[in-house]
Amino acid sequence: MKARASARWWCSDPVSTLSEISAQKCFGGWLKRYQHRSQVLDCDMIFGVFLPPQAKSQPVPALWWLSGLTCTDENFMIKSGAQQRAAELGLAIICPDTSPRGTDLPGEHDTYDFGSGAGFYVNATEQPWAGHYQMYDYVTKELPALVNEQLPVTGEASISGHSMGGHGALICALKNPGAYRSVSAFAPICHPASAPWGIKAFSAYLGEDRNTWAEWDASQLVHHAEEQLPILIDQGDEDEWLGEQLKPGALEQACIATHHPLDLRIREGYDHSYFFVASFLGEHLEHHARALGLIPGNQG
Amino acid sequence: MKARASARWWCSDPVSTLSEISAQKCFGGWLKRYQHRSQVLDCDMIFGVFLPPQAKSQPVPALWWLSGLTCTDENFMIKSGAQQRAAELGLAIICPDTSPRGTDLPGEHDTYDFGSGAGFYVNATEQPWAGHYQMYDYVTKELPALVNEQLPVTGEASISGHSMGGHGALICALKNPGAYRSVSAFAPICHPASAPWGIKAFSAYLGEDRNTWAEWDASQLVHHAEEQLPILIDQGDEDEWLGEQLKPGALEQACIATHHPLDLRIREGYDHSYFFVASFLGEHLEHHARALGLIPGNQG
Repeated sequence: MKARASARWWCSDPVSTLSEISAQKCFGGWLKRYQHRSQVLDCDMIFGVFLPPQAKSQPVPALWWLSGLTCTDENFMIKSGAQQRAAELGLAIICPDTSPRGTDLPGEHDTYDFGSGAGFYVNATEQPWAGHYQMYDYVTKELPALVNEQLPVTGEASISGHSMGGHGALICALKNPGAYRSVSAFAPICHPASAPWGIKAFSAYLGEDRNTWAEWDASQLVHHAEEQLPILIDQGDEDEWLGEQLKPGALEQACIATHHPLDLRIREGYDHSYFFVASFLGEHLEHHARALGLIPGNQG
Repeated sequence: MKARASARWWCSDPVSTLSEISAQKCFGGWLKRYQHRSQVLDCDMIFGVFLPPQAKSQPVPALWWLSGLTCTDENFMIKSGAQQRAAELGLAIICPDTSPRGTDLPGEHDTYDFGSGAGFYVNATEQPWAGHYQMYDYVTKELPALVNEQLPVTGEASISGHSMGGHGALICALKNPGAYRSVSAFAPICHPASAPWGIKAFSAYLGEDRNTWAEWDASQLVHHAEEQLPILIDQGDEDEWLGEQLKPGALEQACIATHHPLDLRIREGYDHSYFFVASFLGEHLEHHARALGLIPGNQG
């Protein structure tokens, strides 16, 4: 129980205020979208939250969901069907956006796999991106601080995501020992430093010195993880991006080499879409709910 | 069991061929989209089908879903989360489009509530609409004949829908005694002859003589129904269209006057969106599954 956070939910004068822009009832809970000024991204941002019915009476733990290329905060909430099971479990879901917005940097909106909608959850060091594209700090520090202060959540968190966001979930967990109770991913980009999407993004955000990329690549970070949080991954074998972009084999090899627990499940016939995510999301929600103490059983 | 239809599934030369344009695995079943030439609409049409895993081995009954204003065949499949329960139940779901497509009639694309995306599931009698806007014949005759012949369904059917499509489901059931095992609707336009959306559409499609509208208005058709198929309706009390456009009270009064069984459930706090539909869709799927003999229990 976190009385302070709960109290702040209706307090209108915190330092950085979350402005509620919509609220829709869903499975007895509420899907809400909030706008706020992000200091680390230097722009206004919107994110989505599903608050289960249990959050009316007490703070609840949260699953952070990081979405993939081209998405906003809305795709997961519209397409995943997550709310039913989250409402049953008493689990909040928080969906950040996938990049800074409203910045209009040169070339930012030209391609689907770079710039807007494609922040890759890294902290950019190169211009003109470094002034805004600090998505890692946004999703691991600034936004959790705001959410934990102003919404009815306990601060206990797990993290998951899809594709670019699946990789984001992996690096957030690997780089922040103790921050998350559990981590999972759907069809993540497992080794962006060797995949076209990742090379394009990292070259621009992080520069051409590939030594600096290692701290943003899950398959390399596994070698230096301070905490061996088990990784759960679902991957469709008919995913059109599997061979060229996602490369789960690279992560699997790194996990074998480092004895990092990995449950990589190849799903026959499934593609890269949210129809695939929805099909196995219930199992992931239960995985996270176990780790967060919402249902009994060993994590795994 | 319907061996003929099952056999035709892999036969490539029926009179009007369904052309599969996509197939995505979902909850062990398949979401497929088909294109075909519609004779009654005089244009090419696309519709979506969810085939549960059970359809691999034998034909299954189907729920027909009619969508609302601005929708295509895709909205329900993307937003409703229906596939999980349908896969468990062994229920196919068939989503027709909401209007003729590719016809480019004068003014057809000018407003969201008329023309494309807004066929209202009636047979137009007025020009220039009558040559294409025969959506009632399309969803009750032509498309069922094609689906029953070429897909692994038994021909046993129920029907539901949302908003304009909720009304569509009601009139399809009321005008076709024996054709559907059950009917339900989410936030239907209950009395279009007295609502702005309905008046706009009926005036253009059916002409200014309002006597002709009665055979396309659920609240009037109830008075002449040959079969008293129970009607299940869920309606959110925070629905922005409730008072002006939907008017469930008109249908309720007609059902009371005619002793037509109606279960109208007002849901506190819910709006008109698919988040509302998703929240109660499981109950509707079970209602239809009972009527179709997929699960035990009385219909209702």
